[in-house]
Amino acid sequence: MTPATARPETARPVNALPRFVLEPLVRAALTEDLGRLGDITSQALIGADVQAQARLTARQEGVLAGLDAALLAFRLMDSQVCIEAAAADGERLPAGALVALVEGNARAILAAERTALNFLARLSGIATATATAVAAAGGKALVCGTRKTAPGLRVLEKHAVALGGGETHRLGLDDAMLIKDNHLALLRHSGGDGVPAALKAAQSAGGSLSGVEIEVDDLRQLEAALQAGAGRILLDNMTTEQLAEAVKITAGRALLEASGGISLARVAEVAGTGVDFISLGALTQSAAALDFSLEVAPAQPERAPPETD
Amino acid sequence: MTPATARPETARPVNALPRFVLEPLVRAALTEDLGRLGDITSQALIGADVQAQARLTARQEGVLAGLDAALLAFRLMDSQVCIEAAAADGERLPAGALVALVEGNARAILAAERTALNFLARLSGIATATATAVAAAGGKALVCGTRKTAPGLRVLEKHAVALGGGETHRLGLDDAMLIKDNHLALLRHSGGDGVPAALKAAQSAGGSLSGVEIEVDDLRQLEAALQAGAGRILLDNMTTEQLAEAVKITAGRALLEASGGISLARVAEVAGTGVDFISLGALTQSAAALDFSLEVAPAQPERAPPETD
Amino acid sequence: MTPATARPETARPVNALPRFVLEPLVRAALTEDLGRLGDITSQALIGADVQAQARLTARQEGVLAGLDAALLAFRLMDSQVCIEAAAADGERLPAGALVALVEGNARAILAAERTALNFLARLSGIATATATAVAAAGGKALVCGTRKTAPGLRVLEKHAVALGGGETHRLGLDDAMLIKDNHLALLRHSGGDGVPAALKAAQSAGGSLSGVEIEVDDLRQLEAALQAGAGRILLDNMTTEQLAEAVKITAGRALLEASGGISLARVAEVAGTGVDFISLGALTQSAAALDFSLEVAPAQPERAPPETD
Amino acid sequence: MTPATARPETARPVNALPRFVLEPLVRAALTEDLGRLGDITSQALIGADVQAQARLTARQEGVLAGLDAALLAFRLMDSQVCIEAAAADGERLPAGALVALVEGNARAILAAERTALNFLARLSGIATATATAVAAAGGKALVCGTRKTAPGLRVLEKHAVALGGGETHRLGLDDAMLIKDNHLALLRHSGGDGVPAALKAAQSAGGSLSGVEIEVDDLRQLEAALQAGAGRILLDNMTTEQLAEAVKITAGRALLEASGGISLARVAEVAGTGVDFISLGALTQSAAALDFSLEVAPAQPERAPPETD
Amino acid sequence: MTPATARPETARPVNALPRFVLEPLVRAALTEDLGRLGDITSQALIGADVQAQARLTARQEGVLAGLDAALLAFRLMDSQVCIEAAAADGERLPAGALVALVEGNARAILAAERTALNFLARLSGIATATATAVAAAGGKALVCGTRKTAPGLRVLEKHAVALGGGETHRLGLDDAMLIKDNHLALLRHSGGDGVPAALKAAQSAGGSLSGVEIEVDDLRQLEAALQAGAGRILLDNMTTEQLAEAVKITAGRALLEASGGISLARVAEVAGTGVDFISLGALTQSAAALDFSLEVAPAQPERAPPETD
Amino acid sequence: MTPATARPETARPVNALPRFVLEPLVRAALTEDLGRLGDITSQALIGADVQAQARLTARQEGVLAGLDAALLAFRLMDSQVCIEAAAADGERLPAGALVALVEGNARAILAAERTALNFLARLSGIATATATAVAAAGGKALVCGTRKTAPGLRVLEKHAVALGGGETHRLGLDDAMLIKDNHLALLRHSGGDGVPAALKAAQSAGGSLSGVEIEVDDLRQLEAALQAGAGRILLDNMTTEQLAEAVKITAGRALLEASGGISLARVAEVAGTGVDFISLGALTQSAAALDFSLEVAPAQPERAPPETD
Repeated sequence: MTPATARPETARPVNALPRFVLEPLVRAALTEDLGRLGDITSQALIGADVQAQARLTARQEGVLAGLDAALLAFRLMDSQVCIEAAAADGERLPAGALVALVEGNARAILAAERTALNFLARLSGIATATATAVAAAGGKALVCGTRKTAPGLRVLEKHAVALGGGETHRLGLDDAMLIKDNHLALLRHSGGDGVPAALKAAQSAGGSLSGVEIEVDDLRQLEAALQAGAGRILLDNMTTEQLAEAVKITAGRALLEASGGISLARVAEVAGTGVDFISLGALTQSAAALDFSLEVAPAQPERAPPETD
Repeated sequence: MTPATARPETARPVNALPRFVLEPLVRAALTEDLGRLGDITSQALIGADVQAQARLTARQEGVLAGLDAALLAFRLMDSQVCIEAAAADGERLPAGALVALVEGNARAILAAERTALNFLARLSGIATATATAVAAAGGKALVCGTRKTAPGLRVLEKHAVALGGGETHRLGLDDAMLIKDNHLALLRHSGGDGVPAALKAAQSAGGSLSGVEIEVDDLRQLEAALQAGAGRILLDNMTTEQLAEAVKITAGRALLEASGGISLARVAEVAGTGVDFISLGALTQSAAALDFSLEVAPAQPERAPPETD
Repeated sequence: MTPATARPETARPVNALPRFVLEPLVRAALTEDLGRLGDITSQALIGADVQAQARLTARQEGVLAGLDAALLAFRLMDSQVCIEAAAADGERLPAGALVALVEGNARAILAAERTALNFLARLSGIATATATAVAAAGGKALVCGTRKTAPGLRVLEKHAVALGGGETHRLGLDDAMLIKDNHLALLRHSGGDGVPAALKAAQSAGGSLSGVEIEVDDLRQLEAALQAGAGRILLDNMTTEQLAEAVKITAGRALLEASGGISLARVAEVAGTGVDFISLGALTQSAAALDFSLEVAPAQPERAPPETD
Repeated sequence: MTPATARPETARPVNALPRFVLEPLVRAALTEDLGRLGDITSQALIGADVQAQARLTARQEGVLAGLDAALLAFRLMDSQVCIEAAAADGERLPAGALVALVEGNARAILAAERTALNFLARLSGIATATATAVAAAGGKALVCGTRKTAPGLRVLEKHAVALGGGETHRLGLDDAMLIKDNHLALLRHSGGDGVPAALKAAQSAGGSLSGVEIEVDDLRQLEAALQAGAGRILLDNMTTEQLAEAVKITAGRALLEASGGISLARVAEVAGTGVDFISLGALTQSAAALDFSLEVAPAQPERAPPETD
Repeated sequence: MTPATARPETARPVNALPRFVLEPLVRAALTEDLGRLGDITSQALIGADVQAQARLTARQEGVLAGLDAALLAFRLMDSQVCIEAAAADGERLPAGALVALVEGNARAILAAERTALNFLARLSGIATATATAVAAAGGKALVCGTRKTAPGLRVLEKHAVALGGGETHRLGLDDAMLIKDNHLALLRHSGGDGVPAALKAAQSAGGSLSGVEIEVDDLRQLEAALQAGAGRILLDNMTTEQLAEAVKITAGRALLEASGGISLARVAEVAGTGVDFISLGALTQSAAALDFSLEVAPAQPERAPPETD
Repeated sequence: MTPATARPETARPVNALPRFVLEPLVRAALTEDLGRLGDITSQALIGADVQAQARLTARQEGVLAGLDAALLAFRLMDSQVCIEAAAADGERLPAGALVALVEGNARAILAAERTALNFLARLSGIATATATAVAAAGGKALVCGTRKTAPGLRVLEKHAVALGGGETHRLGLDDAMLIKDNHLALLRHSGGDGVPAALKAAQSAGGSLSGVEIEVDDLRQLEAALQAGAGRILLDNMTTEQLAEAVKITAGRALLEASGGISLARVAEVAGTGVDFISLGALTQSAAALDFSLEVAPAQPERAPPETD
């Protein structure tokens, strides 16, 4: 098999996102929840110097993601907070598992609560859905995310896909070339004529530094792409039978990616066809949030309220 | 019935969000998709001065939301783009409905495509889920969103809830007071003792300018809240029977909100109990994205490529 | 008395603002003072590694506010500065009182001086004016700020009002509803007819989560508001006699707020009428700055100049 | 008289601030007032497509400043608003004067109202106080602002000083050198010895591109400064008699600036001593806000609600 | 030849950068030049309503780049400026060529002058150096930029490389993989062993979506890379003889890029060896600025000074 | 000699730039290099928890600048990195000199490498060119930078000029007045008449706080400027003979600055004429980058991967 069609083998360990990437997103989330006055309920009911202990737990079984962001929310509200993490991003947790203990100013903890839970719920939901798809694929195909992410959160959501064991695919329009039907429609107008011309133009423009993938809608287009030397081909909206036929025709000459309307339920079946990748918009667009809870109790002894610095 | 317990009657018309609110969010979304180089596929395949016509259509039936943001994405990529909107935010569209015609520079339209679709899919999904819940409630109860929103997108997601006919509820921690179990746990520590003390402290602190709602877990707490003069009470995680009993006990003395683990499927049943509000985290956390498509074709005659200004 | 008309009793302890709220404001203030070159006088006259001790003192008697922001200015200029705070925000200081000792790089301290003093002078001026009004009100009425604040500084200025013992009132347009004459003028046009219709619409729209206050110009409107069940009524531009009459008419049925053209000198008299709140634009728009000074002397022994990190 | 001691003769015409300078400040001010939901009162009471006419008037006599910022607030809320300015920044208005007519979406106008008024009130207050001081000085001395400005608003406040006919003085620490007592205290430590050494170091460092002014506390220091060739000398906290004596001693050899604790009431007297400049922190720190009002009425015929673009 | 080793043939037409990409950079540049007060010389000397005509010309022969940014600087200072462009980015200009006529407020034009010239001089310098290298390569090899760009200006500088006819190469660390000696040093530590292991890991991780290039220091490493199926190989710091030998050995099996210490003077010679790409850090790090001038004259008749909007 | 024409004697020690000034620039540079995914090569090849030691060395002899920015890049990628600086900004280094040892997470170090090197190469190049010019001037004249800097980097580049022993000259348009031919052309139109009128207007407007320099093109204009009392005069584009003649004519009555088309090669000759300042656009526009390298090796023992906080 030539290198160009080597299939990635296993998920790689994932680095934590640098704080300077996370912090603007966490600040923006806190700011939108706090408004101008912050948590007026806590300010009305709880003393300024009350200390609290909070237990952050997962209410559902799943893969943890977003913990760094969540804990940063507490730190930004109380720079003296004490945090004991009991789990790490990427870890699979049973229902009820303790995620972290947080001890600090009571008003600060309650002010950060919803922000922290929103990061955890959304990102762990994505990681969990990805892990489910990865398990369904059974190692026969790799599971990929798409660019169908919440505006402004792509890096976090793709990171959650990686934590779930998936491939992140293109992070944006300049990572790699993906030739779609809209490109072919306009290419024709530009004087080229379809798949071979598009592939040639793309490979030439990329100078081999940009990966190139081409989307095909049927087996005739697949043949054209293979003959034109495509290294990776996206099979769009095909039935399981069509996918199996495509694998047979391709015979290892290119990497194949099944895409388009693939639900989690269909992953195992699609993986069985022998495609290399299965990409699912549903991982980021329709993953159910994972449920977390924060239980708060008074802490002893009381410490001073958090200072500004 | 006293004014304090007047139930909102009908959804109000919703203003478009001002451009200065939308633009930073759309720019951030474009920026994260374009990266540094922009759409390298189109740059490789399509002439710099090719003009294209694009048809934006809804692939599924649903309530439109996010159109302003989506169209702004095209405008920011090509300041001379011509846009003909065929629908408006808040409108219910049949599957296949034309949403807008967009004509302009081909590379610019393709560069904005995914960003535009991501806003539409996510926000229309939320509006549609809300409208479904509103229909299920049958006018017997009002449907509310929660603060379980994607970090950074709360204003847009709450706007989508409103476009779907829902109430937006608190936008953040300083809109109104909502006394929860965590507050009561710490209040006790602060020297107060439970529901009456909490309500009194909250109402006093608010000076009647801040609305106050209190969460109760059982009917005993409900009684305490009613006796303490609560104007709005959140019934947390109750069965339909408990909710019906709560309505009976309350007898119009306060507005009641059912919350906690209510799926779309249960809305009709819950509305039947006579509660005033039903709030669902699922509207923003688990709404399925609505599917849109952008079909692009060459436009005649070609115009000059978009200038910077 | 029903809870809706409970009058707040005492000022609550005020949390420090989180650093992530203060830091952008302090950075912006430093940046506008430093320009591109920073303190060129000190650079010309003082050695790069000279250490200095600075005594920050209050030249006038008053209530301290803005200390967190002021000290952050020194820290941002010299990350190794040693600060010993001798007073705390909210504390009443005699003239000449030491506020803090600051020891660090001499150029850094002088570069932060004006920024630090500007925060202190302005915010302590507001806190002091508020405290004066609170004292004049003698516990008979609560003193409130308004939205007449310096653009961009509202959170800090409202915080200073709170430190002075005042109520912050609405922080912005979405905290609570305040129905004014302009709304009534347009409401009439929208088909409604005056006070009862406005109150009903507002209370209904708020779903009891948004507090509602209505402004009345005369006693006739007051009666209408009371009959419509208003919970809090703003008495606009009334004489002391009219205010007293309004209190008599209301007889505890609603909270009353005197507003409009009330100078500090008139607070005691107005409080004597029995209104619940007195709001003064003057607290933020016309409070005299409190005078502070920073006296600098060489420190021994010299330390290394501050590093970037 | 040598050029170095030429006294500025008359105030120069002042350019409008560029929009890219104003817009971030106006957006920040709108954002802090609108919060997340905007003007919930108007949304509850006024139809989304109601058009309104608003008359912006000055309630007090004074010099207009801040109009550009104020009108931009309306434009940012309704891009289709029609504005007819009836006055211009820098103009002296009688009480009751019409400033501008604003016609557009009613909700948008009301949402921008307070922001617009806050810019106008504060900045016109500064311009008016400056004009008062300029009149009191009677052309005998020029009136200057200081760096005692509201953090983040220095450019606007200095612009208002200029509109009132004053000199803006240093905008920040890098505009010019101003040698103060704190510098002398540390300079001595750095090995120099007082006024002549400081002046020499400053003039040398500036290479004649940076203006240099030195603060003196008494006549002995004044003599030293004059002998050292100072071009401009700040006379700090002197009595009127001392100032007159300083003018006599100086005999035109340097420009003299009276500063420190000069109230508006003392300006005429100080100007009579023959100093060249009088600087007053009070212009920006203690100017009373000028009162403006916005009266709103329905407009005919109704137009469509404002679009996002 | 397989597609993976297709060499790009000709430079593609380059789209203008979108305004939302340019505007923050131009605003930042204006802001750093204007400071707080703007162009105080013009304010002192030129009337606020004087109109001027400015001729922007190239003093040296070269390839134009940065015109969009330059003209935007004038527009941001005077929204009513009239601009007549006489040339376009990417065009080769003779010395003395007119680039644009700019007519508008005199103070605004002078305030934008240096910012406009700085963009033009720097970016046209890069485009011109690139064009020189492209001409020297004579079509035998493609000329590439590197990541050695001025911090914060990479997109503009790479755009200038493209306007000069060069390839932009990687825009950042996530565009493509480039395996360097530092990676091999650490890879060995990670348990792999050199070129084949590195290539395999990279190709597998990329899933064919990320291009992969490997740097080799000598011909032995080149052989290893070829045997491992490398598609593009960077020949680091080789002599012309070594490069020629490498081309011979490779025999079309991979694309070859000469890099490391290649001056403009050596480009022709290196291109003669038959390598596919030549990359030069000098294009962005050491290109001489191209000289432009702006000559200003009064315009007739005078117009009103620019308004804020 | 009068103070107004005192020539600066020696370069002053230069303070490090505060972190809050550097950090936004370093973050922006990292962000543009990392894109969304960061260093995908390292992620593919190097374990997440590998530790590395890196030696940062200067490949060429020169004056160090930019070290603070460079080291901050490593710190922002790995908050636990250990850095041992072996040199300081402003120090002259021999070729091969060790600059710093950096030990931390391998992926983090490689991700920051190019950003760190870009700051060092560019800024040290400027400092080195300045030092060369300063040496050439031999203490006879001071060497100055200009405003011909890379957009957005002026503060850093001027700081590098200072580290190289140069004068920074105007940092922007509001530091000092510099009357140029364009001003004279428009001044005439404004009713004034050339050099004396311009100088008088400028000196008057500045109130002696703003330094004033005037550009002259020939000896006739020089005479006019001297007669009008100019304190500093820029001699534009003059030959060495003309400069010498100008010095003779001036006879110490004003400071003289040679400017316009002066290459490094001509500095010694120009300094010999007796002018006080020589300003060179080439220092920032055409300085060759100084070459640095980062050699990375595995570190023992491995530490945990960097955490977010």
